[in-house]
Amino acid sequence: MSYSFGKNFKITIFGQSHSKEIGVVVDGIKAGYKINHDLISKNLYRRRPGKNKYSTSRKEQDIYKIISGEVDGITCGAPLCAIIENKDQKSLDYEELKDKPRPSHADYPAFVKYNGFNDIRGGGQFSGRMTAPITIAGSIAEDILAKKDIEIVSRIKSIGNIRDVDIDYININSQIIENLKNDEFPTIDSDAKKSMKNEILKAKEKEDSIGGVVEIAILNMPAGYGEPLFNSVESVISHAIFSIPGVKAIEFGSGFSSTKMFGSEHNDPYYYDDDLVKAKTNNHGGIIGGITSSMPIVFRVAVKPTSSIAKVQDTISLKNKTNEKLSIKGRHDPSIVPRALIALKMITAIAILDLTIEGDK
Amino acid sequence: MSYSFGKNFKITIFGQSHSKEIGVVVDGIKAGYKINHDLISKNLYRRRPGKNKYSTSRKEQDIYKIISGEVDGITCGAPLCAIIENKDQKSLDYEELKDKPRPSHADYPAFVKYNGFNDIRGGGQFSGRMTAPITIAGSIAEDILAKKDIEIVSRIKSIGNIRDVDIDYININSQIIENLKNDEFPTIDSDAKKSMKNEILKAKEKEDSIGGVVEIAILNMPAGYGEPLFNSVESVISHAIFSIPGVKAIEFGSGFSSTKMFGSEHNDPYYYDDDLVKAKTNNHGGIIGGITSSMPIVFRVAVKPTSSIAKVQDTISLKNKTNEKLSIKGRHDPSIVPRALIALKMITAIAILDLTIEGDK
Amino acid sequence: MSYSFGKNFKITIFGQSHSKEIGVVVDGIKAGYKINHDLISKNLYRRRPGKNKYSTSRKEQDIYKIISGEVDGITCGAPLCAIIENKDQKSLDYEELKDKPRPSHADYPAFVKYNGFNDIRGGGQFSGRMTAPITIAGSIAEDILAKKDIEIVSRIKSIGNIRDVDIDYININSQIIENLKNDEFPTIDSDAKKSMKNEILKAKEKEDSIGGVVEIAILNMPAGYGEPLFNSVESVISHAIFSIPGVKAIEFGSGFSSTKMFGSEHNDPYYYDDDLVKAKTNNHGGIIGGITSSMPIVFRVAVKPTSSIAKVQDTISLKNKTNEKLSIKGRHDPSIVPRALIALKMITAIAILDLTIEGDK
Amino acid sequence: MSYSFGKNFKITIFGQSHSKEIGVVVDGIKAGYKINHDLISKNLYRRRPGKNKYSTSRKEQDIYKIISGEVDGITCGAPLCAIIENKDQKSLDYEELKDKPRPSHADYPAFVKYNGFNDIRGGGQFSGRMTAPITIAGSIAEDILAKKDIEIVSRIKSIGNIRDVDIDYININSQIIENLKNDEFPTIDSDAKKSMKNEILKAKEKEDSIGGVVEIAILNMPAGYGEPLFNSVESVISHAIFSIPGVKAIEFGSGFSSTKMFGSEHNDPYYYDDDLVKAKTNNHGGIIGGITSSMPIVFRVAVKPTSSIAKVQDTISLKNKTNEKLSIKGRHDPSIVPRALIALKMITAIAILDLTIEGDK
Repeated sequence: MSYSFGKNFKITIFGQSHSKEIGVVVDGIKAGYKINHDLISKNLYRRRPGKNKYSTSRKEQDIYKIISGEVDGITCGAPLCAIIENKDQKSLDYEELKDKPRPSHADYPAFVKYNGFNDIRGGGQFSGRMTAPITIAGSIAEDILAKKDIEIVSRIKSIGNIRDVDIDYININSQIIENLKNDEFPTIDSDAKKSMKNEILKAKEKEDSIGGVVEIAILNMPAGYGEPLFNSVESVISHAIFSIPGVKAIEFGSGFSSTKMFGSEHNDPYYYDDDLVKAKTNNHGGIIGGITSSMPIVFRVAVKPTSSIAKVQDTISLKNKTNEKLSIKGRHDPSIVPRALIALKMITAIAILDLTIEGDK
Repeated sequence: MSYSFGKNFKITIFGQSHSKEIGVVVDGIKAGYKINHDLISKNLYRRRPGKNKYSTSRKEQDIYKIISGEVDGITCGAPLCAIIENKDQKSLDYEELKDKPRPSHADYPAFVKYNGFNDIRGGGQFSGRMTAPITIAGSIAEDILAKKDIEIVSRIKSIGNIRDVDIDYININSQIIENLKNDEFPTIDSDAKKSMKNEILKAKEKEDSIGGVVEIAILNMPAGYGEPLFNSVESVISHAIFSIPGVKAIEFGSGFSSTKMFGSEHNDPYYYDDDLVKAKTNNHGGIIGGITSSMPIVFRVAVKPTSSIAKVQDTISLKNKTNEKLSIKGRHDPSIVPRALIALKMITAIAILDLTIEGDK
Repeated sequence: MSYSFGKNFKITIFGQSHSKEIGVVVDGIKAGYKINHDLISKNLYRRRPGKNKYSTSRKEQDIYKIISGEVDGITCGAPLCAIIENKDQKSLDYEELKDKPRPSHADYPAFVKYNGFNDIRGGGQFSGRMTAPITIAGSIAEDILAKKDIEIVSRIKSIGNIRDVDIDYININSQIIENLKNDEFPTIDSDAKKSMKNEILKAKEKEDSIGGVVEIAILNMPAGYGEPLFNSVESVISHAIFSIPGVKAIEFGSGFSSTKMFGSEHNDPYYYDDDLVKAKTNNHGGIIGGITSSMPIVFRVAVKPTSSIAKVQDTISLKNKTNEKLSIKGRHDPSIVPRALIALKMITAIAILDLTIEGDK
Repeated sequence: MSYSFGKNFKITIFGQSHSKEIGVVVDGIKAGYKINHDLISKNLYRRRPGKNKYSTSRKEQDIYKIISGEVDGITCGAPLCAIIENKDQKSLDYEELKDKPRPSHADYPAFVKYNGFNDIRGGGQFSGRMTAPITIAGSIAEDILAKKDIEIVSRIKSIGNIRDVDIDYININSQIIENLKNDEFPTIDSDAKKSMKNEILKAKEKEDSIGGVVEIAILNMPAGYGEPLFNSVESVISHAIFSIPGVKAIEFGSGFSSTKMFGSEHNDPYYYDDDLVKAKTNNHGGIIGGITSSMPIVFRVAVKPTSSIAKVQDTISLKNKTNEKLSIKGRHDPSIVPRALIALKMITAIAILDLTIEGDK
């Protein structure tokens, strides 16, 4: 089903960009868990637009309300439901968009799928706004994973042609992790950060947009989770990741570069580090045969340039069956990468937590 | 569940590389469908190793038997079960492998997951052999899709650093499609094909292996299939693709190169081709907002170099907790790309057919 | 998952008796459907307590709000979410109930399951109150089924030892159907109705409660829906029915009385009624081999006497590990049968609608 | 999906009465489990027809073969697949049955559902024969449950109007349990047993059939399993039970008789038996609010009289659209109750085992 995800930690998302409210139902939180409101607020804040010049000036207050599943901040075993009221909805000329589908936007496929009844306002259920409820559920997952000592780190790997440095997550030092977690524009190299921001501003000036790559690492994941074939860890993670709007690609470990390597280069030899089995290198990205190896799970996600741009574009009129021009008004992110990063981290937390909840056969 | 895939066209895989038999249960074929045995045999033949010098000399006869779900070659509405007997199983020194996990093989994660009870012979359920039953089910899916006029084309996009030419699937001519379908080593450029084969032989000579990229296109897919969020077409396809052993990455449409583009370059303008809505370019790869656009669905898959190589490698002894050397005996594919291609096409057919079966609300 | 039901028409319930709000997410309504608010309101009204002396005097306003999935009363393809605010919550002595589990109430099993963190107020997620959101979703299902000409009729078959007359649904006249649909205490025989109401009042006077049987019939259901084995129509309906609190049994068609019959009596002979295949009798209750036969689907549901009674009962103190006495204060239904009837009808509508949405293979 | 059942212990059934083979895939057995072939054989033997005069003289050898999922009798973590070859298939006049649907048989609904392509031979996938693979999977479940100290007891509660005595499972003695487990026609009262057998023979003489009631109890089930609403223990068990052919009804604990009781009679008071919480009575049948209470789970299942009888019956000709007579040739069970009992026990074991496998949140 399209709006639910997960088997033992299961989320169901509802809402559209301009519906009265948007929200999430989370089924599968243990009774007795103390909700970490600070983490939810922090992640929602990071996801939120309108805070700086690198993102849209559209403001979303994102004040969430938990309406079920808890008693005095402690979960009670019933599904938790959290909602966010939709405010600051500008009345754009949606009639025009209903007729003239935006290039590379869901408008046209949605028009066909829903026989024209789709909610065009703000992008409907295709809006990046739907990542706000995912962020609430993801923050809970991140917090529960932290109690299991599993940590998710994310950073901007590239914007356009500007790339951050490579890093070996097997031996990453804790200060770098801490820095990445607290940085709203997380990179390892500060010069790369500056250049990336500059790249975004340049796109903004040209009324254009720019894409980038997000890298995510899951640290301290024990060996033995996941399944061969259809529930491989890669299958589950990629399924989750491609639910975030704007994603075009994912690669695990060596990814596409593995295709240019010989097996002798690519294979990661094992060794004993005291009593612990470790791999010297991590081309496998923490997953072999669909199952975790205890090495960091590492993957990179391609995020396309924002499709809403002010520049004039070619499109059609569905009503008149004619070719037309379109300039998309409103406030857009010159790059959704910094905000997509948090959504990608959140859905990753949900997928990973679900993987770690296995039945005791 | 790890060994089942699909919602309305649902397959369940069973077996290990050296179990008595391997097979597949297919639930969801309409009663009255005439099984296309020619297509099953052709695809099984293409998947089969031991036919030429580019693959392992290990022979698998792959004679399948349909044991339920049909009467005189016509489906009857009950689940179809097909099995293949396992033959030509060499008794390698599996005791050594049980103790010394092969680098970048599932041995070690499986050892942890199954407390040492996993079937190490031939790779157990992690073996590429499991793609034989997938090929049976996939052939049925391919045949049913063909009746809906939906066609799946696949080719080798690269081996190591050797790349086939790019192509625009929107305007691809039917002769090229036909050639690709009948070629066991499908490429568009014949020089590239020769160089790729050469690259594989070079790896083989060095007792090494090499990876590559497979490109798949789905033609004539109507607009409006798939769902936003968790059942995006990309989510479903990537989930399926990462169930095939050896896959490290997937990219749709422009994929990773989208991250280096401006929105104005990346957006695909619509136009009317007579009465049909079309996009001039296909950076979106036939999917926007998780839903098909009617343009060809195009994606590329990274296949890593075979991890089984004869070259001496570093590993450990789980029993003695010592560091050890290992040389993997037996017959290996110097590149699994040509055979993975058919498995990838087959699981794609299954995923796409399932997507096209939607309830009439 | 425990709080979701359905495959193609899928509902997810959230809330507890005293949570801020309760609600339902409905995934799978076709875009373009006009929400029938009158029917939702009518069904919610019938489910609501506090209207007469046969039910509890507790008042629930049940004003629902649709917060997503529609634009101007028309569905847009996104999941519909409806919520009801919880009001009129009396602050009973829940501390006592937390310690002293009410006999035949979920208190003790929930205490064990949730390690004491369950929301004891008003019965938490075990409350009959959870049938309010089910009623919203069920009303939508009932309305969509009506457009397919499928009708669900329900009546009180017995209260205690008082039984309504038997009826043959194959030849039922439309006036009886209409009467049953508009009656809040639906029976066919008006004397039986009077006696049943009397029986309930007698139980009420004694600070006691009484059970009864609800009969449901689905008319105009075409042949060929459902599946053999695990998705038999009986499996799906019974799964749904036993999700309603207080249900102890279900029987289809001849039910338990079939066990006292010979095959020659029990078998339902076919005949042609003009061009239509019909059965002369309906011991099979509209389902054979798990699949609908086109005859009315008929089943009866046993609803136990309300477990909350004012009479003094024996129980325990979980804290002191002692045997104790308990008198349950508050407002209780002397019989939940009349209100359970609407919940049973609603969940039936959901199950039946889901069964009728099958993929076009 | 119709041919799969279970979430963490998941079975998929395939085959028809006269397909080459029938079988089951079991996904979710822990690696390292030693398959109890004695128990499988014993249960298959009890399910098998042709052993005595109370069942059909049709012989099914039921020699099963495990073709995957194990190494030397120990599970390896891959799905276990077991198959049984179909032998002793009589070539009845299935052409006649294809045209003249047997009353109260799946023939007609299947004809509609599968557009006439259903496998009519031996009843196809609707055949009681499909309970043989269920018995294999159920025996594994029964064995794993026994290791968790959970025991399933079943008996014939009635045949026609002949009833076995009532019993209190809370205080049942172990000798009675042992007797019931080893008896092929399990009753507590030996006089009742004789009368029941007599009743079956009388039906047989008249070329007729007779129904009955099976009672099942699950002993030592800990408190806290199951879920409220849609995964209530009753929902899961009833879903499973109604997948067995011939079932018309199920009641838990007091069942239909609860509807004639006052709450004060029906409620089961708690008390401390040393440190253990117990209920004095068990009208709730071991389940409250959908969750286990630690008291025995008790339910009764109505099994209809065999629909295949030699007596002449009225039916139709689908070809000629005329009313016709039919006498069903072949070998039939005069009562399927004794053999249904083992199938019911087996599917119960599967459902209960699945319920006890919960993720560690």
